[in-house]
Amino acid sequence: MDTLKVDLGERSYPIYIGSGLLNQTELLTQHIQGQSALVVSNETIAPLYLNKLLPALEKFKSATCILPDGEQYKNLEVLNQIYTNLLEQHFDRKTTLIALGGGVVGDMTGFAAASYQRGINFIQIPTTLLAMVDSSVGGKTGVNHPLGKNMIGAFHQPQCVIIDTDTLDTLDDRELSAGLAEVIKYGLINDPDFFAWLEENMDKLLQRDKDALAYAIRRSCENKAAIVAADEREQGMRALLNLGHTFGHAIETGMGYGNWLHGEAVACGMMMAAEMSHRLGWINADKVEDVRKLLQKAKLPTKPPEQMIASDFLQLMAVDKKVIDGNLRLVLLKDIGKALVTADFSNEALSNTLQHCLAA
Amino acid sequence: MDTLKVDLGERSYPIYIGSGLLNQTELLTQHIQGQSALVVSNETIAPLYLNKLLPALEKFKSATCILPDGEQYKNLEVLNQIYTNLLEQHFDRKTTLIALGGGVVGDMTGFAAASYQRGINFIQIPTTLLAMVDSSVGGKTGVNHPLGKNMIGAFHQPQCVIIDTDTLDTLDDRELSAGLAEVIKYGLINDPDFFAWLEENMDKLLQRDKDALAYAIRRSCENKAAIVAADEREQGMRALLNLGHTFGHAIETGMGYGNWLHGEAVACGMMMAAEMSHRLGWINADKVEDVRKLLQKAKLPTKPPEQMIASDFLQLMAVDKKVIDGNLRLVLLKDIGKALVTADFSNEALSNTLQHCLAA
Repeated sequence: MDTLKVDLGERSYPIYIGSGLLNQTELLTQHIQGQSALVVSNETIAPLYLNKLLPALEKFKSATCILPDGEQYKNLEVLNQIYTNLLEQHFDRKTTLIALGGGVVGDMTGFAAASYQRGINFIQIPTTLLAMVDSSVGGKTGVNHPLGKNMIGAFHQPQCVIIDTDTLDTLDDRELSAGLAEVIKYGLINDPDFFAWLEENMDKLLQRDKDALAYAIRRSCENKAAIVAADEREQGMRALLNLGHTFGHAIETGMGYGNWLHGEAVACGMMMAAEMSHRLGWINADKVEDVRKLLQKAKLPTKPPEQMIASDFLQLMAVDKKVIDGNLRLVLLKDIGKALVTADFSNEALSNTLQHCLAA
Repeated sequence: MDTLKVDLGERSYPIYIGSGLLNQTELLTQHIQGQSALVVSNETIAPLYLNKLLPALEKFKSATCILPDGEQYKNLEVLNQIYTNLLEQHFDRKTTLIALGGGVVGDMTGFAAASYQRGINFIQIPTTLLAMVDSSVGGKTGVNHPLGKNMIGAFHQPQCVIIDTDTLDTLDDRELSAGLAEVIKYGLINDPDFFAWLEENMDKLLQRDKDALAYAIRRSCENKAAIVAADEREQGMRALLNLGHTFGHAIETGMGYGNWLHGEAVACGMMMAAEMSHRLGWINADKVEDVRKLLQKAKLPTKPPEQMIASDFLQLMAVDKKVIDGNLRLVLLKDIGKALVTADFSNEALSNTLQHCLAA
């Protein structure tokens, strides 16, 4: 087992990565401080892994809250089911929430923990590659609004993150690829060696080679933990983690939550960011092709949906959380492994990029 | 104008108290950091005071969100109207929310600010006595759940609190009395001199004597600011501010939100806490009567609603936020001006108190 630390002073916490961790009951129980725990999962994951957790919870008052599966359920209404469950069972302020599932379960459980009785503890047990390498680490929690992704939420750090790599065995290929989008993101942002490693090892990852997956997860989490430790509340560099997300969120919202997987939308968004960086003269055409090749190798989409037009993107991107005083900021590339947040581009450059990508 | 400070390190903020403050535009504008502001108010208050704010907002991109008036609207669904308004207008992370109204508007606006794009600034402009002396100060924000009062929320401090005492001119008598319940609370908790002052001056307060009201507001805010500064997140002494609230929340939830005003329920709850303290041998019968007399003088209810029975209370109190690991804690009185948080009572003492109060 590997243990990483997210270094946030008194809010620091460990990330455990390894095989068979769901069977190690003390890993979980040592992080439950009160006498009660509510496991939040979804209809797909609960039948597969809930039983593995139950022995660890025997000595606690515990219950389970099963949500429907999919991004389209990441909203206030479904969130309210978690509160109702907690209140019906008289679960108090010392209760620990346990998120067992992918990014949707993790984000919603985290926000429920942030807001139930003004804040209770929670633990992340991610079961998708995407949640393992991205959403379960760093304390961003929340739900979607019909007008924008993740617009309602809070920063709320978990007590720990338990990544049992065995749970990837049941992940379908499409979800695996979606997770690889966020893995590739770390290479693009600030880790060119990792990008090169991914070019070499993408086949192994798709074949679910255990060692390759464990390495990719660990390196992704290391990257994320370092960025979050430096900038917990996204005052600066943490925004780099949004590479591909402004375009991507527009796709997710525009196509209706749940139609494109988050990772798929981010992959396409990274491609668009690379294209725009090229249009601004920051990276050459070869590097744009390197990005495209790696994404395609990971079986990820690199073209925006045909149903969307440029004005859809512009309208949806106008409510992005990186807009400040009306100015849209984007994460773009100065190189592979060198991203930056910038508002230093013309509307024309953005329009040209959208036209180019949509016509491709 | 008086200026008090809530001392919370980098989250410190001023409370301005005085007559005509809504006309002092710079008081408001100096605390708006971005280029946009959304005023959240309700159907009752907006027609009375919204116009006064508009000159101050001329140089900002601003808009207004008018909510229905009443505790029964303090829920996730109405909260979502604020998010929708913000998103429709493309209001970004640098936007400031301005709560213009009573406790419901303040609590909901504060929680919207805590959770919109994971946290934006807000300003409290309370227009009821209750909001001035209690809910606008201290950063507790949230909404109700059908199963419990204020069960969904966050700690989120405002940029400032602007108390224009002129707004009390339009407050109806019932709301004025409800506010006095929270004023009396400060005397009971830890300020016996203030309790004595209230016994002397209650008639003046009911007659809306400007000086008496200003003094009561300032002294209440001083008490609250000191307690919040010592214990922002209610790890200890801040729980004292919940005197009367565990019984009171049970009444509000049990009777249906909006039927009893919050202050009325708290008044009755404080009476029940006094009765229970007497039953535990902590205060004598004369002091219980002193509490009853002052509450009655303030035209506040001291008897629980006839529709509720003891088991209603026990069931509703079991989800109180002060329950820890299944143990109910109550704020009770060792003396007038000396409250404490305790789980040191028998179920029998609680049952006897409920029986006594309900039979009275």
